[in-house]
Amino acid sequence: MSPTPTDVEQVELANTAFYEAVERGDFEELSTLWLEDEVSCVHPGWPVLTGRGEVLRSYALIMANTEYIQFFLTDVKVTVLADAAVVTCTENTLSGGPAEEAGELGPLVGQLIVATNVFRRTQEGWKLWSHHGSPVLAETDDEEDDETPA
Amino acid sequence: MSPTPTDVEQVELANTAFYEAVERGDFEELSTLWLEDEVSCVHPGWPVLTGRGEVLRSYALIMANTEYIQFFLTDVKVTVLADAAVVTCTENTLSGGPAEEAGELGPLVGQLIVATNVFRRTQEGWKLWSHHGSPVLAETDDEEDDETPA
Repeated sequence: MSPTPTDVEQVELANTAFYEAVERGDFEELSTLWLEDEVSCVHPGWPVLTGRGEVLRSYALIMANTEYIQFFLTDVKVTVLADAAVVTCTENTLSGGPAEEAGELGPLVGQLIVATNVFRRTQEGWKLWSHHGSPVLAETDDEEDDETPA
Repeated sequence: MSPTPTDVEQVELANTAFYEAVERGDFEELSTLWLEDEVSCVHPGWPVLTGRGEVLRSYALIMANTEYIQFFLTDVKVTVLADAAVVTCTENTLSGGPAEEAGELGPLVGQLIVATNVFRRTQEGWKLWSHHGSPVLAETDDEEDDETPA
């Protein structure tokens, strides 16, 4: 018998499943990964979306406009406290939209995005409660001159 | 006797206290508002900061470089599930850095930032577990053409 995965391992798997569902454009799978309760989502540069309807509609739109997307996750950090978990990670994304001409892939664009994903323990496993992604605009090595607030 | 504030009211007060501490540049107060455990923080355009030391140092730097900052919070939404809470809000900020000449205020800059703040219930009240702020770059009214992923 293999040992029961720890909470941290389970949350990390739920986090990976989320990105894989987006990569595959698997809307049905993605829907099952979000809580049934009130959820919220911020895509990079977007305002806040709240509620399952608004959040899932945004993914349907993104999937319709994305021909190809791949996430290389780095710096994945998981913190579990009782029935909630916070995951932070860097999404190194490579994506392309539909091409102008049918059958061709649009130009691929690389982006550096950081995400905070909040999960909630349910009877059906860990479910997404909140996703917040944002573009990294500043250098990490020297933040002393950065005046960006809060 | 006034009624005991609900969880949602308590979380909203903790959220307001967080922004007021940054407005006042009150580092001591701000330190007491964060969990003692593993915390994470993303300032707009920044990479992820993890751990109390790294997070609090970033606020010390921001406070040192910010002469004036004011937050007008709108769209504050609170969700509480057991001992954890997610707050989303729009931070309409007005801020200014130190001026070139001593005694003068630097130019004021307005910014539209959205935040996801995660709180955790402790014996000393609700404490910040995660803060993620990001600039709003896109229009909210017509997202159909937006191809920004995940």
